[in-house]
Amino acid sequence: MSPQNIYVTPQRGDSLNKFTKKILLNQRFINTGGFMKKFLIFFYLLSFSALISSEEDINTNALFLGEKAENEQQFRKLLNEIVEQHVKWRSNFHKEDGVIISPDEQQKKEFENTIQRTELALAELTEKLQKKTMPFFSPRYIGHMVSETLMVANLGYFATSLCNPNNCAYEAAPATTEIEIEVGNQLASMFGYDTSKSWGHVTSGGHVANFEALWVARNLKTIPAAMKQVAPSLVHGFSDWQLANMKVSQLLDLMTEAKQAGLIEKIREYSARGQGVDSSKIGKILIPQSRHYSFAKAADLLGLGQKNIIDIPVTENYQMNIDYLKKTIKDLVKKKIPIIAVVVVMGTTEEGAIDPLNEVIQLRNQYEKQGISFYVHVDGAYGGYMRTLFLNEKNEFMTLADVKSTLDEKGIISEEFNWPSKAIYESFKLMNEADSITVDPHKMGFIPYAAGAIVMKDRRILDLISYFAAYVTEENTSDPVLLGSYMLEGSKAGASAAAVWVAHKVVPLNITGYGTLIGKTINVANRFSEDLSFFKDEFDNKEIHVKVLTKPDCNVVDFVFYDKNNNNLKDMNELNKKIFEKFSHKTPPISSRSFLLSKTDLSFDTYGNTPQKFVENIGMSADEWKSVQSVYILRACMLNPYLSTNNSYEIYYKAFVEEVKKVLREI
Amino acid sequence: MSPQNIYVTPQRGDSLNKFTKKILLNQRFINTGGFMKKFLIFFYLLSFSALISSEEDINTNALFLGEKAENEQQFRKLLNEIVEQHVKWRSNFHKEDGVIISPDEQQKKEFENTIQRTELALAELTEKLQKKTMPFFSPRYIGHMVSETLMVANLGYFATSLCNPNNCAYEAAPATTEIEIEVGNQLASMFGYDTSKSWGHVTSGGHVANFEALWVARNLKTIPAAMKQVAPSLVHGFSDWQLANMKVSQLLDLMTEAKQAGLIEKIREYSARGQGVDSSKIGKILIPQSRHYSFAKAADLLGLGQKNIIDIPVTENYQMNIDYLKKTIKDLVKKKIPIIAVVVVMGTTEEGAIDPLNEVIQLRNQYEKQGISFYVHVDGAYGGYMRTLFLNEKNEFMTLADVKSTLDEKGIISEEFNWPSKAIYESFKLMNEADSITVDPHKMGFIPYAAGAIVMKDRRILDLISYFAAYVTEENTSDPVLLGSYMLEGSKAGASAAAVWVAHKVVPLNITGYGTLIGKTINVANRFSEDLSFFKDEFDNKEIHVKVLTKPDCNVVDFVFYDKNNNNLKDMNELNKKIFEKFSHKTPPISSRSFLLSKTDLSFDTYGNTPQKFVENIGMSADEWKSVQSVYILRACMLNPYLSTNNSYEIYYKAFVEEVKKVLREI
Repeated sequence: MSPQNIYVTPQRGDSLNKFTKKILLNQRFINTGGFMKKFLIFFYLLSFSALISSEEDINTNALFLGEKAENEQQFRKLLNEIVEQHVKWRSNFHKEDGVIISPDEQQKKEFENTIQRTELALAELTEKLQKKTMPFFSPRYIGHMVSETLMVANLGYFATSLCNPNNCAYEAAPATTEIEIEVGNQLASMFGYDTSKSWGHVTSGGHVANFEALWVARNLKTIPAAMKQVAPSLVHGFSDWQLANMKVSQLLDLMTEAKQAGLIEKIREYSARGQGVDSSKIGKILIPQSRHYSFAKAADLLGLGQKNIIDIPVTENYQMNIDYLKKTIKDLVKKKIPIIAVVVVMGTTEEGAIDPLNEVIQLRNQYEKQGISFYVHVDGAYGGYMRTLFLNEKNEFMTLADVKSTLDEKGIISEEFNWPSKAIYESFKLMNEADSITVDPHKMGFIPYAAGAIVMKDRRILDLISYFAAYVTEENTSDPVLLGSYMLEGSKAGASAAAVWVAHKVVPLNITGYGTLIGKTINVANRFSEDLSFFKDEFDNKEIHVKVLTKPDCNVVDFVFYDKNNNNLKDMNELNKKIFEKFSHKTPPISSRSFLLSKTDLSFDTYGNTPQKFVENIGMSADEWKSVQSVYILRACMLNPYLSTNNSYEIYYKAFVEEVKKVLREI
Repeated sequence: MSPQNIYVTPQRGDSLNKFTKKILLNQRFINTGGFMKKFLIFFYLLSFSALISSEEDINTNALFLGEKAENEQQFRKLLNEIVEQHVKWRSNFHKEDGVIISPDEQQKKEFENTIQRTELALAELTEKLQKKTMPFFSPRYIGHMVSETLMVANLGYFATSLCNPNNCAYEAAPATTEIEIEVGNQLASMFGYDTSKSWGHVTSGGHVANFEALWVARNLKTIPAAMKQVAPSLVHGFSDWQLANMKVSQLLDLMTEAKQAGLIEKIREYSARGQGVDSSKIGKILIPQSRHYSFAKAADLLGLGQKNIIDIPVTENYQMNIDYLKKTIKDLVKKKIPIIAVVVVMGTTEEGAIDPLNEVIQLRNQYEKQGISFYVHVDGAYGGYMRTLFLNEKNEFMTLADVKSTLDEKGIISEEFNWPSKAIYESFKLMNEADSITVDPHKMGFIPYAAGAIVMKDRRILDLISYFAAYVTEENTSDPVLLGSYMLEGSKAGASAAAVWVAHKVVPLNITGYGTLIGKTINVANRFSEDLSFFKDEFDNKEIHVKVLTKPDCNVVDFVFYDKNNNNLKDMNELNKKIFEKFSHKTPPISSRSFLLSKTDLSFDTYGNTPQKFVENIGMSADEWKSVQSVYILRACMLNPYLSTNNSYEIYYKAFVEEVKKVLREI
């Protein structure tokens, strides 16, 4: 499916026939079964599909239930329709079958008791949830990378979950398997991949997506040597060092040749898949220091060992330092140590930093001229959806000037913040040259857990990890791809894919949809960052200010409170730790917290001396850093969509400042 | 938490004060907020918790929505209560905050359009689902290991999903992290583990659970050598071969010593975790031929390579052949090749077979006397919940005689089927001696996807795979365990754990709950198996019979139709393939299918010559098997709970036979 088919290109002047719209949307339509309904759906799909991706801007306030459940009525109506439809489906399936649970049965004491147990269990769950669940819906929650979820995604999940499809096997989930493949194409298209060649699917989260990418990269690295053993003619004339440095596309071409020659099974048998790993020889994975801990797990899990991870230092903006990357690659090449993959993070977990992917791609291009190549994986678990900010209504990647003017004109991100920088722009632009990308719909896709995803540029790569189990899959059938045999996981909720799919229907993957939604959170983060830098509170010989770690690359703001009269790092850390305790679950009950933040530590162990400059900028000596080697940081993910509405940001910022001043006096 | 605390032991004579019950259960209670409600919940929890696990048998008809949505009214009432409660939670959180989405906003055209897009997207999803989703709710679906799901689990999932907790980090999910730990304890207790020492958690499915178990086993195997390097005094006097064969408990004791000596980090660094895998030395994993394909993936993923898997042949009952296992272990010991793990399957995917775990445990006990040991993992993804059939109301493991008399007296499994065999009984009994167990609540737990689980006997094993990321976890805090750092996955839906938790509240994990529910499906499978063996259809010089593969170990029935006048295996396979096509999605639309089956192939590649005897029993020659080497099998998972009600089984069996006769004449 081409991008044009996934995203119906809206035409100026498209308008929905009012009468048909009414029929389509009113309760009667929803209740109409059979032919009439099918006809209307068909008619709608053919003629009015423009509505789904209409250029009319979406109203972000209509996407969520509401901080005070303002859209309760709309939510209930939609929910009722789902139950109505589901009940009809059940009762219409083989209508001739009699009812099994009789009204008499329902009158039995045991039946009543069982229903009561159900009520009590749900009441107990509700009680627990309300007492100890984070109020992600509230603008007062500015902690982790979790936010309010889209109403349509919640409802879509529920509707599908009632049917319980398992996307492991097409047989167990024809509808949602097709939906998942469509979602994979949608995400691939968002990243600029050619969807006739790419591959993508939903995972249980970013961890598994990253594992899958590195699994592929690891196995790929062992293919040339396997070819040399099984089919030496395929790689005739290449030295071992050349074989260990082949371009991904070149390798996949060779695999295609091998497949045509009927040699692929044997080659896989001689690759890591069959032979396992020799961790002393396989090569290195290069990852910025700011990486997520899932990569340490990945190196362990995949049998590479953590010794085969090389951490690349970050700049003072917490982006991968390209100079160090260059130096590292140069050293490795000199020592003839292969590089399995370079991982680029777009939206680091701690800082929301966007690594310079464009420079990594350029570096690879240069090295390829010397016959050296490596796999590039992007961890866009958090930042991936941000590419929608760069796509216009026709899903074309805009010029930097167009991006900026669009964001400003539509009131998404104020010009004063000068977002995006050229570096960020270029990195998003070149995502389509990465070999694979992790992206989590359950983060900036505003989908409920669990919905991660992995997208790969060239689907031929699947041959490295595909498995077939007789009972779930049949090779060479005309069925669509059978997912469980092409991924790390097996059984999986079709409901996750469906939730993402309906969300993408309502919120287009370009500037008119997610671009607007996410852009506004970036604007709020920039405002918050700027406002914090003006914070000042004087009392008891103290003069408290805020230092923000970096200008936000996206919507994460890291900052510390500091007393201008204190030059002791340990004391500053203690101050922020005490503040955090008042802004977290650590001071229960959660319902009494005014705001909820998260925190992180920037320590020498993880970041080397990068945080030193930040500490010095606050006015502390280098010695302070050298002795403490860790700075305790408050972290706000400004994901909440309600902070972008009217003047809510101002109101909540004012309340935040008041609360901080109160807390500062208490602790 | 001890088993007694998890499962409130019901007392004879417990009765719920009628008045309080009424207050607790009626709508007014649900709507009452604040103090009164808390008091009542408290009161209820203290005094009436017996109701939740009361000895009153549950009515299985009240657990599900109903094949024709007979319990629609009850379902809607519960659903409304959930929405009501959720809305209240939102509006009560910082009540002083003003409403952000104003009624004026809701009147805007853009707002209305966005709601309409939502309606349309959900209508399109519903249409797709109804057209191409398997009707798991219907007694006519007897295909894969998927069935109807518990009403309470669906509702609990939805209720939690609206709050969207992420069980990766306690901070992001205090309530559901605690719930997940409780679920882990419940499952551990079901398997007879000592919950003060065990560990369990929810996974996205059986794949990941199996990966996690083998990841632990693999890393454990490399610990002794790491100890020898880092702390030789710890393992003084042991030869390398002795180190490679240590008992799991002995190793964990040594790790505890190392931890106390502050050496554990260094030891982990020198184990597979830090150094990676050397697949030529690490050892073998022994798994029955009947294994799930996730184990082939596991060997690849973990860097062991498939060459390090040894398939153990199965008997003609498709259970692991212990003689072959003995022989294999003997050979390996002779060659001084270490055994990483022996995997035992309880409820094979294709046949529902229960491997003789007891014999494997006994074998290990014998070998341990010679200083040889290995890790034992049970893949109970499918069969794990069956242990509830062996637990009485007090959660005590019953004698075989008591099991049989209870099943018969309660009308769960008819005495005539002589279930369980002594072998099955002994295997379930010894589950508490396995080192880890995979069990999927989304299979025989009747929970919606995705909910797998892994349970480990000794939680000290976590030191092998634990990770800490500064932002999500803090070591040495008083918080409950932070899940993301102790498991393969990271971000995960708290809703999955909550769904399992509420289900366990309503359906006790013993003979009064799941035991009854699952036992009845075993009874149905045995009836089906027996009835099929009497099937006979004569027409056009054909005489069609059915041969059942094995007497069902659980609720899976494998069978073939054969023509007594045909002795050609290929023709028989073709016949069953054609039948399958009429009983599957391959003949659309799904709504027109009378019954839906699944199928499998028993081929030489997977099973060696084990299926030969089955083919010969049908009346074909050994040569037929030798030339075709594969038999196409129809497979029915008799999980549907409605087939156990009144005389529904008879009605549907009759309809099945009629349909088969019709199809036989058509094809």
